Amino acid sequence: MKTAATGTRDRILDASLALFNDDGIAAVSTHRIAAELGISPGNLNYHFKTKEQIVAWLFRRFESRVTPFVDAATEVSALDDLWLLLHMTFEAVSDYRFVFRDIGTLLGTFPEVGARAQALTERMLVAAQATCNALASAGVIEATGEDVEVLALQLVFTTTCWFTFKRLVPRHGGGRHADAALAAYYTLTILSPYVVGDARDYVNYLRAKYLR
Amino acid sequence: MKTAATGTRDRILDASLALFNDDGIAAVSTHRIAAELGISPGNLNYHFKTKEQIVAWLFRRFESRVTPFVDAATEVSALDDLWLLLHMTFEAVSDYRFVFRDIGTLLGTFPEVGARAQALTERMLVAAQATCNALASAGVIEATGEDVEVLALQLVFTTTCWFTFKRLVPRHGGGRHADAALAAYYTLTILSPYVVGDARDYVNYLRAKYLR
Repeated sequence: MKTAATGTRDRILDASLALFNDDGIAAVSTHRIAAELGISPGNLNYHFKTKEQIVAWLFRRFESRVTPFVDAATEVSALDDLWLLLHMTFEAVSDYRFVFRDIGTLLGTFPEVGARAQALTERMLVAAQATCNALASAGVIEATGEDVEVLALQLVFTTTCWFTFKRLVPRHGGGRHADAALAAYYTLTILSPYVVGDARDYVNYLRAKYLR
Repeated sequence: MKTAATGTRDRILDASLALFNDDGIAAVSTHRIAAELGISPGNLNYHFKTKEQIVAWLFRRFESRVTPFVDAATEVSALDDLWLLLHMTFEAVSDYRFVFRDIGTLLGTFPEVGARAQALTERMLVAAQATCNALASAGVIEATGEDVEVLALQLVFTTTCWFTFKRLVPRHGGGRHADAALAAYYTLTILSPYVVGDARDYVNYLRAKYLR
């Protein structure tokens, strides 16, 4: 059952998320969050004593949304499964885009949350290596152990930093396709030179869909 | 001739750069810059009326350091030239790493500088496309027009966002090799599946040097 208190709590988290995503953690005070919601600073303080508590809660939400994708990544052995997984991951990263984008602020101001973001990235790296190894075993890609190491790094680099890059090149992409879909496509193109056999048809299908 | 005034001015810029790189533009006030240098806020204000002026000057310095590399990129037709160019570009991006990393703050707080950072990124994209086309013409890489488009985007994505990513994965790389060299190597691996002929030997040479 949703009480008034949990309702306010959720509203605070949702408003904070939107403000953090738009303006960055550093630029948003708890006073501004309260003002945005039309509640008193005292009321906000009743639910969250500090901005760090809000940031930590939002990070936990993000983590629990991404973790199933990270776990699933170790079992991907086909390109369309990977595409779906990338798509869902990018949607989550986009919804909580302050996390990876503001990593500097997190590390400097809320080091515990910053360290957890680093740990999550490490888990993503391990999962990406497992994915690449599984794709190689399934004969979807042809890649040496060294290739896999570099590919995994590039996959996670793109997953975590793409939306940061997008602000540098606002005119590229967007438009016809949702951000997450286009991001997933670009990420897949990192793998595409390594793709062999029938799976190439799938890459060509995606290229026709997203590159025009 | 260097007067005392230009000396102080340069010291302010150097100290600001170091602080912006370490803690981000948003977290550093002009008061802190003055305190760091042991000068009065009034003295700092005599040289720079606002933080925006300092940021704009530093951006201009960065731009004039990177522009020769961007211009040279259109004339690269061998892989070792590209490697050298990437290396020098990454050194500049690392020295002024606040620029691309804090693009959100720039766009939100100092939109003129933010717009210039976007324009610089656009020029880098055009130059990267020219580089890829030249490499393809020279028979160094085998790539279609569509490949070139995606490759150029990936090259510039890495150039601008690598040091942001590094903070998410502090345990990877670093160590034996300078950051800029390793970044240049990783960037070159994006091209490596497209490299054909003798140029492959160069890629293998770099791999042996950097991946161990």
